[in-house]
Amino acid sequence: MNFIDGGITAPEGFKASGIYCGLRKNKTKKDLAIIYSEQECDAAAVYTQNKVKGAPIIVTKKHLEDKKAKAVIVNSGNANTCNADGEEKANAMCKALAKELSIKETDCIIASTGVIGQKLDVEKIEVAIPDLVKALSKEGGADASEAILTTDTTKKEFAMEIIIDNKKVKIGAIAKGSGMIHPNMATLLAFITTDVNISGELLKVALLDAIGYSLNRVSVDGDTSTNDMASIMANGLAKNTRIETKNNDYEMFLNALRMILIEIAKAIAKDGEGATKLLQCNVYNAKSEEDAVILAKSVITSSLVKSAMFGNDANWGRILCALGYSGVDFDEKIPDVKFISKSGEILVCKNGSSIEFSEEMATLILKNDEVVIDIDLKQGNKEGFAFGCDLTYDYVRINGDYRS
Amino acid sequence: MNFIDGGITAPEGFKASGIYCGLRKNKTKKDLAIIYSEQECDAAAVYTQNKVKGAPIIVTKKHLEDKKAKAVIVNSGNANTCNADGEEKANAMCKALAKELSIKETDCIIASTGVIGQKLDVEKIEVAIPDLVKALSKEGGADASEAILTTDTTKKEFAMEIIIDNKKVKIGAIAKGSGMIHPNMATLLAFITTDVNISGELLKVALLDAIGYSLNRVSVDGDTSTNDMASIMANGLAKNTRIETKNNDYEMFLNALRMILIEIAKAIAKDGEGATKLLQCNVYNAKSEEDAVILAKSVITSSLVKSAMFGNDANWGRILCALGYSGVDFDEKIPDVKFISKSGEILVCKNGSSIEFSEEMATLILKNDEVVIDIDLKQGNKEGFAFGCDLTYDYVRINGDYRS
Repeated sequence: MNFIDGGITAPEGFKASGIYCGLRKNKTKKDLAIIYSEQECDAAAVYTQNKVKGAPIIVTKKHLEDKKAKAVIVNSGNANTCNADGEEKANAMCKALAKELSIKETDCIIASTGVIGQKLDVEKIEVAIPDLVKALSKEGGADASEAILTTDTTKKEFAMEIIIDNKKVKIGAIAKGSGMIHPNMATLLAFITTDVNISGELLKVALLDAIGYSLNRVSVDGDTSTNDMASIMANGLAKNTRIETKNNDYEMFLNALRMILIEIAKAIAKDGEGATKLLQCNVYNAKSEEDAVILAKSVITSSLVKSAMFGNDANWGRILCALGYSGVDFDEKIPDVKFISKSGEILVCKNGSSIEFSEEMATLILKNDEVVIDIDLKQGNKEGFAFGCDLTYDYVRINGDYRS
Repeated sequence: MNFIDGGITAPEGFKASGIYCGLRKNKTKKDLAIIYSEQECDAAAVYTQNKVKGAPIIVTKKHLEDKKAKAVIVNSGNANTCNADGEEKANAMCKALAKELSIKETDCIIASTGVIGQKLDVEKIEVAIPDLVKALSKEGGADASEAILTTDTTKKEFAMEIIIDNKKVKIGAIAKGSGMIHPNMATLLAFITTDVNISGELLKVALLDAIGYSLNRVSVDGDTSTNDMASIMANGLAKNTRIETKNNDYEMFLNALRMILIEIAKAIAKDGEGATKLLQCNVYNAKSEEDAVILAKSVITSSLVKSAMFGNDANWGRILCALGYSGVDFDEKIPDVKFISKSGEILVCKNGSSIEFSEEMATLILKNDEVVIDIDLKQGNKEGFAFGCDLTYDYVRINGDYRS
């Protein structure tokens, strides 16, 4: 199992493209992408749990009722959410794409991201679709990965190769996510492709499982978006024996899917709006995995912890405070807290109480772009982790005037 | 019923003082306060629900088992939390105060606020107590209100006068709170005094009720502190017939207590760390009051809404988004959203969808130090409100390096 170059077009049979169609004010930024597999795919998706859902979410849910898909269309610059004509326009996008690709409308997965509550200028998309389809290529994966970004500062694409049933299987993924990120089932856009041969049912089970380990453990700002979605399409071109049960092949595939999604989760946290560093919180020796994950999420979600990390301030009391209000029952008199980075590690709290430590050393360790907060609860044998980022002036600047 | 000048020493029989004893680095800031009633008081308190509790919380709980108190001692500059010797030192503070006032240790309410996990230099407090007791006076209320502050930029003291049973009854209060503020039972320090004559049982009931309407509806940053507490002492010197049941007199008193605590809640939100404006979110026509309050809290807690308010950006989509992830079940296709301030009001969302509105007018309305977000859910007849503030560069600055 190893990471390889490329993204969604790394697996056999997938092409992609991304262009600027005029939705974004900044003409140097692409804003429309498609992904396409000529071979019909088993497909699954998970959706935001926000009660207010973007129109594309509603349309995609309908289209995936048959667990099949051939194409994805995504625009940035406008979320097509909270608009009375939202579904109509999402349907128009699928119709135009289906016509150009000569596929069924219901074989289209659709997503939109950007400002909520502004009318979508769907004509611009319709006009651009022929060019977008013409541009479809193996090399187009990078363009697609750019076109789905909003406030992201880096594109997020990953690909992986594994051997299943003696066949080379590839998984590719692109994602966007920078603000409005909070763990609650697919809180960002991620599109995953694979040439593995697997049933639609198991594909969904694997996606849900892997997201629980990755995208549901990232928080940038505690805000769960209205539009977020992660989809996966498997076209079977790797020609492995079709995975129909939770056998060894399934475990191999699931493990790879988890790994690629964890990389996406880390990339999103690190590129959190305004962030200067990736935070990972590990909680060890909890009574249950669920407890460990809740505690880790509580720490990486705390505005006070995030601000202290920005300031390279080893203010560990805020970490204990965040554990304390997580809602998890634990003995607060025994946890140890450690900061770890490339510069070393330092114990800052022993048995829930203050200990002597070098502030200089702590600052040195915190002055890194990846910092791990290790918490040893010492009251069980389960562990969990979560990813986040620091809270900075730039988060406020970016979000103080997002629409202009 | 009307607000009057003064704070905790407005009610009959209460004296207070506040001085600098050396806990804070900044010598121009007072850091130690006491409140005293020679007459024994019925007393009650509510405490943080954080699992990690400051030592003073544990000691106060014990001391209020008999529902009686005569004095309050509070220090700022150090929370005396997550220290192995915390309770020992909190007890030492009560012991020193009790000795100087010739009262029982268990008649002392104690609170501390400041950095978590640093050893408390209790000798400085013990040495200062004789001076503090000598300084007790009617005029000392203002000094006490200053000495309990941390990152607050303004002192928070209020007093009110009502007629109960043909007697003049006064209620006074001081509070501190600026960061680490989130609605979860008394998420700040508030000390309330009154000369009403009421049983300890009903005093606690009234305090819980009033806090539900006020302090539990403020959020600055979503962090619930380890040390926060609200206490009330009633010495009966107003000489009204003792309130022993939920009669008209009780309702009068409760109503006044609610009003004074709502003023504190607003003052705390407005003085939220780095805040430039007070946000109030009103939710109307919900299915239940509980739903309305949860929805209002979700809006004022959203980092994205808070950042938009700082930028005077009428990005109402984020408000719908925050309603959507609140967990409350509602029809997202019908709410209206309005911004209101001294400069006027403007409807920005009708039936959950975008409408045309003047961005210039919206910006003008948002450019005020008090902004109300009115949400008409149109699916019931209950309402609720919550208070918050905007998220600014200064929140990050203040919390990036709090300890130094």
